[in-house]
Amino acid sequence: MSGSNGSGETAEIRHTARGLQTRSRIIDSAQQLFYIKGVNATTLDDIRLASKTSKSQLYNHFPDKLALIHAVIDVTSRFVLNREEQRLRGVRTLAGLRRWRDALVQSNALQDGSYGCALGGMSIELSDVDERSRAALSETFQAWERLLIDTLARLQKLGVLTKEANPTALGTGLLAALQGGYLLAQSAHNSKPMGIALDMALDHIDSFATG
Amino acid sequence: MSGSNGSGETAEIRHTARGLQTRSRIIDSAQQLFYIKGVNATTLDDIRLASKTSKSQLYNHFPDKLALIHAVIDVTSRFVLNREEQRLRGVRTLAGLRRWRDALVQSNALQDGSYGCALGGMSIELSDVDERSRAALSETFQAWERLLIDTLARLQKLGVLTKEANPTALGTGLLAALQGGYLLAQSAHNSKPMGIALDMALDHIDSFATG
Repeated sequence: MSGSNGSGETAEIRHTARGLQTRSRIIDSAQQLFYIKGVNATTLDDIRLASKTSKSQLYNHFPDKLALIHAVIDVTSRFVLNREEQRLRGVRTLAGLRRWRDALVQSNALQDGSYGCALGGMSIELSDVDERSRAALSETFQAWERLLIDTLARLQKLGVLTKEANPTALGTGLLAALQGGYLLAQSAHNSKPMGIALDMALDHIDSFATG
Repeated sequence: MSGSNGSGETAEIRHTARGLQTRSRIIDSAQQLFYIKGVNATTLDDIRLASKTSKSQLYNHFPDKLALIHAVIDVTSRFVLNREEQRLRGVRTLAGLRRWRDALVQSNALQDGSYGCALGGMSIELSDVDERSRAALSETFQAWERLLIDTLARLQKLGVLTKEANPTALGTGLLAALQGGYLLAQSAHNSKPMGIALDMALDHIDSFATG
């Protein structure tokens, strides 16, 4: 599908400003549809319609659906990790960690628990069918876990948590509580179980408080 | 699609022994494919091939894919709830609860974390696109949660857990830890994060031990 298409554009479309705009419009539409309908329930025609692109424009940027899926995983991973880094880097108290929890639960409540976590959803749909997607998503979850572990290690260094706390295990447990919370909230169409799941993990972390 | 089909069978196929066998073969194949490939990635043709049924046999039992999905949710829910009821009803100690955890993590380790929880996977794929599926899966998760809450309430009644323990919140948190653990294990293709997630939830429950 490389070379020219009906409108006279060439393969270099990728490198022009207009080409980059088209590419980003395709990724945005795919990201939204994957989030709301799911990856496998979304067709390339759905994405073309939503992004107002022609068949040849789409193929010029993404030779197949898998290439587009990989681009969406990349963009979503960077978005979530950037958001989490922003929210976690200033946390220096257990109250600060509760505010991180509140922000996540409040966003989830605004959509009545629907749609869950974009990364968790893609991981469940793709991990056993496309190794490259699984590896990329697993790397993102590890980076997310690392942000939580670093935060807990900082709290320990600041003397907020005792030496007995194990930031590594607590970070994994906290991310699992978050993901399990998203899943139960999506099924209930209610963010309440997500709040309860995170509260249990944070209560456990509180049990290592020095105060 | 009711009435007769090419092989001369009638709509009453559902009520004959052979009809019931065919129906159960279709559901078994669909259940396995949904678990391994995902619901949306599985076509009716995949299911026909795997279950060795003709198009008319399939349509005789299930007018469309959604009807088959609802049947698989029903069968899977009953299987999981029955298994959990068997495993949890005899739990009268915290060590017993750890054995329940070990059985789940060991099964997951046998498949290197792959595939996750059949119910969790279907919930993520279906909750925002089919209300009947969402409602059925939400009901199953609530029944599963209820089995955990009843177990924790029993431990409290037996004096294993203190009066300060809240079985309802702990039951929700434990199910979320399990589901989040399944999700991270599926992404990592390694059951380790599932074990860590459940251990954190059980450590928290242990903190209410009277002993």
